[in-house]
Amino acid sequence: MTYCVGILVREGLVMIGDTRTNAGVDNIATFRKLHLFETPGERAIGFASAGNLSVAQSVLSMVTEGFRNPESGEMERLLGVDTMFAAAQLVGRAVREVHRIGNLSKEQSQSGIFDVTILLGGQVRGGRLRLFMVYPAGNFIEATQDTPYLQIGEHKYGKPILDRSIKADASLADAFKLSLISMDSTIRSNLSVGLPIDVLTIRRDTYQADMVYRIEDGEPYFHDLREKWSSALRAAHQAIPVPPYPPRHPPE
Amino acid sequence: MTYCVGILVREGLVMIGDTRTNAGVDNIATFRKLHLFETPGERAIGFASAGNLSVAQSVLSMVTEGFRNPESGEMERLLGVDTMFAAAQLVGRAVREVHRIGNLSKEQSQSGIFDVTILLGGQVRGGRLRLFMVYPAGNFIEATQDTPYLQIGEHKYGKPILDRSIKADASLADAFKLSLISMDSTIRSNLSVGLPIDVLTIRRDTYQADMVYRIEDGEPYFHDLREKWSSALRAAHQAIPVPPYPPRHPPE
Repeated sequence: MTYCVGILVREGLVMIGDTRTNAGVDNIATFRKLHLFETPGERAIGFASAGNLSVAQSVLSMVTEGFRNPESGEMERLLGVDTMFAAAQLVGRAVREVHRIGNLSKEQSQSGIFDVTILLGGQVRGGRLRLFMVYPAGNFIEATQDTPYLQIGEHKYGKPILDRSIKADASLADAFKLSLISMDSTIRSNLSVGLPIDVLTIRRDTYQADMVYRIEDGEPYFHDLREKWSSALRAAHQAIPVPPYPPRHPPE
Repeated sequence: MTYCVGILVREGLVMIGDTRTNAGVDNIATFRKLHLFETPGERAIGFASAGNLSVAQSVLSMVTEGFRNPESGEMERLLGVDTMFAAAQLVGRAVREVHRIGNLSKEQSQSGIFDVTILLGGQVRGGRLRLFMVYPAGNFIEATQDTPYLQIGEHKYGKPILDRSIKADASLADAFKLSLISMDSTIRSNLSVGLPIDVLTIRRDTYQADMVYRIEDGEPYFHDLREKWSSALRAAHQAIPVPPYPPRHPPE
């Protein structure tokens, strides 16, 4: 499994992804799932994937090397597209193409085993900073002001904190902290999501990644965040008064 | 969907369940999923179910009215069993019996549509206070000191807070508060889990339910708990320092 989240706020974009892959609990490995396509000053696009690793890696290679658009006949790659919308279309086409090349039967395609879901966020000069989620069928949706975050992979454990706290006008630093808390909740509850964590941030209208970082196990800030968050939660539930509901059998 | 959780601590047992059922998002109804089997001073057993409502209701009726044990030839019901282990076995048999009577094909049984999962917690005089989870196949597991809680239904959203905070030596009031926080997280993130919430507590060695209560929408304590919890989470993540990771492109 995998957990990745992208958060789009006024100041910019945060993307975060774990690095654990597993083929059964007895076959765990570390693979980078968060990648950056960048021409500083012109474009910065983050790419994160969850699902079948072979499909995800093929899609990544195709959008890196480029492949022919059957409509226009032109070679297209992520470092060449003119807009983020075109970038999402390109990734969607790559997903469909990998399925076509693999000659998957309808049953295989529908089994879910070859599914891949991709987060694609960034900005190309001349366009807006945008965040998309590309589904296994190659279609995609976009984050909006109402719902400024998108998650892929094992998303449920880390969703409550985002549902409560993320607003489109949050600061980039706040969005980043919340993405780490969301990741921490997921790591604690699901063995198949694990450290190290890759993070990147892109500030609006800079067309380059502001920060690209790998958080390793034992990294002091993240360790401290986990401790602080746990003790804050303990303090929070201890501060809530005892339920006032009357006992059913009053003590004699 | 449904969310129910049982927590077993030294002082006693908490069980909590929502009341929403849905057959599609356009067909939502309220059904009690948490039930009490009690002979005060002799036994108190909580029963909560998640999954197919028709199967759950049939199982509930069977363990209430009693049905014949094919091994011993005797009629058995939840208010008659001698131990909690026998109670879990009875419920497991009832689940298998409902599947047998319904004459489900192997495909139907394996489709998951007719699945039901049951929490069974309580104490019968002469035995310990115990908490079981009965699987769709009729087999069951028991909560222990290491993992003193069991969840059924939509369990992921509400699991992080339990993973962090529940210990077997928590007070009953604390376990109850945590079960409400866990339920709140689930309700916020999943439409198919909804108010009102049924709760019951059983104190160890009393053989009767200490509290049986339904929390309706707008109930002041629960409303206040939700507000307090949200603002404590906000304060908690605001109190965490800004990530110190260096920018990649230093400002010019």
